[in-house]
Parts: sequence; structure tokens; C-alpha cells
Amino acid sequence: MFPENLTPAHLNIISQGTLLTHLGIEFTEIGENYIKAKMPVKDETSQPMGILHGGASVSLAESIGSTGSYIIIDKKKESAVGLEINANHVGSAHEGYVTGKGTLVHKGRTTHIWNIEIRNEQDKLVSLCRLTVMILKRPSL
Amino acid sequence: MFPENLTPAHLNIISQGTLLTHLGIEFTEIGENYIKAKMPVKDETSQPMGILHGGASVSLAESIGSTGSYIIIDKKKESAVGLEINANHVGSAHEGYVTGKGTLVHKGRTTHIWNIEIRNEQDKLVSLCRLTVMILKRPSL
Amino acid sequence: MFPENLTPAHLNIISQGTLLTHLGIEFTEIGENYIKAKMPVKDETSQPMGILHGGASVSLAESIGSTGSYIIIDKKKESAVGLEINANHVGSAHEGYVTGKGTLVHKGRTTHIWNIEIRNEQDKLVSLCRLTVMILKRPSL
Amino acid sequence: MFPENLTPAHLNIISQGTLLTHLGIEFTEIGENYIKAKMPVKDETSQPMGILHGGASVSLAESIGSTGSYIIIDKKKESAVGLEINANHVGSAHEGYVTGKGTLVHKGRTTHIWNIEIRNEQDKLVSLCRLTVMILKRPSL
Repeated sequence: MFPENLTPAHLNIISQGTLLTHLGIEFTEIGENYIKAKMPVKDETSQPMGILHGGASVSLAESIGSTGSYIIIDKKKESAVGLEINANHVGSAHEGYVTGKGTLVHKGRTTHIWNIEIRNEQDKLVSLCRLTVMILKRPSL
Repeated sequence: MFPENLTPAHLNIISQGTLLTHLGIEFTEIGENYIKAKMPVKDETSQPMGILHGGASVSLAESIGSTGSYIIIDKKKESAVGLEINANHVGSAHEGYVTGKGTLVHKGRTTHIWNIEIRNEQDKLVSLCRLTVMILKRPSL
Repeated sequence: MFPENLTPAHLNIISQGTLLTHLGIEFTEIGENYIKAKMPVKDETSQPMGILHGGASVSLAESIGSTGSYIIIDKKKESAVGLEINANHVGSAHEGYVTGKGTLVHKGRTTHIWNIEIRNEQDKLVSLCRLTVMILKRPSL
Repeated sequence: MFPENLTPAHLNIISQGTLLTHLGIEFTEIGENYIKAKMPVKDETSQPMGILHGGASVSLAESIGSTGSYIIIDKKKESAVGLEINANHVGSAHEGYVTGKGTLVHKGRTTHIWNIEIRNEQDKLVSLCRLTVMILKRPSL
């Protein structure tokens, strides 16, 4: 589904100097129909109680899904816009890294839908997210 | 609804050294039933296209709602946990600040629900969020 | 915002013989920027415990928002499609009617967003919903 | 995970005379960690354009998840309450039946989370839902 020669390193270059690098988000794997990225659990991604901030989880989820849609659209004719995201926070993370795995569950003409699961280093579920990306046609010249 | 002498400065002290200060989130106003905070739109809160990252919006929204619940619970007997958040991204922000206004729309015994509206400096709606906070009883000693 | 001469009776005629009438949903008021409809709480809209089924609440909410978008689009050139809906169930209803009030909170070129509040006869909040409607251009002839 | 001798017929008896039977919802299968139910696509479950109403989809989803939680809690000590539901409507159904498959993706002490996929007879995805159920302790006597 994704371009043949695309590597995680390429995605990490695109995200240089944005929220992604500011939070330490790093793409680690591009699979058949999924993308993985990890994020450190540290003061800068935590809330005052010392556990991963839910907003950091959602940032990781939205980064994975919107990057995933961006790399599969026809960029000459289309653009991809994050429209809606929702997340259930079901576990906590205190240290190390969390890993998000985003799977494209619907690839329509006008919308993409991604499921993103975020897990801690013990592989316990931290957050369960769904992102709706709208695919807009660029006005033809 | 909120403690009488509580000021935004107090909330900003609590969030020192967390995701909130890392993103530049600053509480600015505590009203009768709402809380406001602002966040800068800059490279560190943006996505590769140069506009505010949806995850940063959600981070602002969840920070406002979960802080709001934290300050109204009986901390000796209860704790507050962010359970679910959802956001519609309807506008974009390129520069300056966005401001989030969180309003407690349901204050139940076991859940709080916050509506959070995020607007740019032209007062245009950027994101519309809803956060569910679960109120857990601490085990009595 | 809505067509001048439009009445709730007109909306009730459109919904004859659909889920809306099957659940007893009846439009009651068209305001400046909102639409109201009511639904009976009875066995046919309840779950086994005898209280209003959350799915009935969502049916009421989606009926209000999608009808509202339908009546304001340019039907020759556009169509309206319900894309995403979410609901927090915060109260219960046992008898009588619940009333849903849908307010259009974002009217964009490609999406409409509706907030729908559902309240019981004691005016207590039962469900809080948000519906995203996608506005599609019909292919020009 | 589910009680050993439990059959779909048993679930259908519990839902007699409620929204479930009013919409024609029928439980069809209880698997290792999932439950399936089907619902007819007919005038009474459709919107004015003649396709399945999104509210009917959500009713099916919430019926599956809340029934699923109800049968696994300790009913003497706990009760299960639908707290939040969200749905992406990605396809349409015009006739025949749709089938919902609900999978318990998180079984916590205080919350259950269900993913529910609804598909039409061509096995195409119609709606993708997530339900949060809150598990409340009954006051001990």
C-alpha cells in the first residue's frame, strides 16, 4: 500500500523541527498496511502526576495516521486533512517508550480511517484512537 | 464552582516541567464555570505543513479539562482520570496563539464532561473537543 | 439560516415511514440556528432495564443534525452524508418524552458540525452528542 | 470469557419487547471474545434516502457491547452503564441485513471498551464503532 522504497528514516526527515520531534516521536516501522512510531515517556510528555499526558498519546496517534494518509494520496491532485480524532485512555505509562501502531481500516475516495493502538513497554494498552482524515481534491488548473 | 482564591498563576505552577510548559500552554483565566488557557502556534506545536498540529490542540483541550476536574474534586477522597477525548478539527492556525475555553457541561458523581473550544487570534473556531473524566473514590483507610 | 417558510410539519412529512416515525421522533421547532425534535420513552425505545436505550438517543441526535444539514444545502449541487457521531450518555430517562436540540456549530464548505443535547422532561441532560456531516459536491453534468 | 452455556437465544429472550426487537436486532453468535447480532435494512431502520440510518447502526453497536458487558459482570456486585459511544459511518446498506461484530478490546476494573464493526451482506464495512461501558460497584448492604 505504501510506496516501495519508503523507510521510517524518510518520515523522520519530513517531521524535523515540528511537534513530532519536539515530543521525541520517531517512526520505526512501515508494514504492509500499518505504520509504527515511538515516543519517550518523560517530563516533557507527562502531566503533573508523572504519567504520560493523554494529549501526548493523541499527538502520537494523529501523527501516525496523518503521515500515513499523506504518503498514500496523489499529492498532485489531493490533500489530506485530519478531521476528527477520538481516544480512549485505558492504561498508563510511567517510563521508557510507548509505541503507536496505526492501521488503515478504511480507504475511501473522500475519507481515510485509521485505528491507532498505543502500548507501553510491557505491551499493555495505553490508548485506543481513531482518526478520520478527509481527502480533498485540489482545484484543477 | 472553583476554589475562591485560585488564580491562573497557581495552575501554571502546578504544570511546571510537564507537557504543558513544553508546549507553552499557559492558563489565563478562571471564570464562574470555565477555564481558559492559551498555546503558541510555532514550529514546536505544528505539523510539517506549518499549521497547528491537531495533537497540540487536543493536548491543550485535555490539559484544561483535566486540570479543571482536578481542582474541584475532594482530593483526599477522590482522584480524576481522563477517560475519553474527541475532537473535530474545523479550522487552522498559522501563527500567534490559540486559546482554549473549557466549560464543565456535566458534573456527575462518577464522571465530569468538559466541552473545550479552541479558537485562533481571529476568534475563528479551530477545534471542538469533549473530554470525559472519571472520578474514582480512593480506597478508605 | 433555514428556509423561511419551513415548518416542523414539513420535516415530519419527509420522515414518514422511516426509522424516525418508527421510533416516534417528531420535529417540534425550527429556530434561528437550531432544530428541536422529541421522542417518546417507551418499551420500543428502551433497553432491557427499562430506561431509554443509548442507541435511541443517538438516533434522535443523528436525525436532527442530518435533517438540519439536508435543509440548508443546495440540493441541486450538493449532498449531505453523516460521517461521524459521538455521544456521552450522562443521565437516564424512564418515561414521557426526551427532547433533542441540535445547534449548527460549524458550517464549512465541506463539513457541518452539530451539537445535539438531549434532555428529559425534568430538563436534565441525558446525552450530549456531536455529529459531523460531510457535504459532497454532486458531479456537474 | 462468556458464561459456558450461554446461547444467542438467551440474549434474544432478554431483549424481548425493547428497542432491540423493535428494530429487528437478533443475536446470532457468541464467540471466544466476540458477540454477533444482525439487523434488517428496511424502511423502519432507514433514513428518508432509503439507506440504513446511522442511528440504527449505533443502536446495533450499543446493543451488542452493553449486552456483552452485562453478561460478564458480577451482577450481584456490579452494574454496567453505557458511557460513551462513537461511530464512523463509512459505507451504506440498502437491503438485506447488516451484521455487527463486537469485540471486547479492554476489560478493566472500572471500564470495558468494545470495538464494533458493522458490515453489509457484501461484507463491506458500514460503520466502525467504539463503546465505553462503565462498571459501577453496587453499594454493599
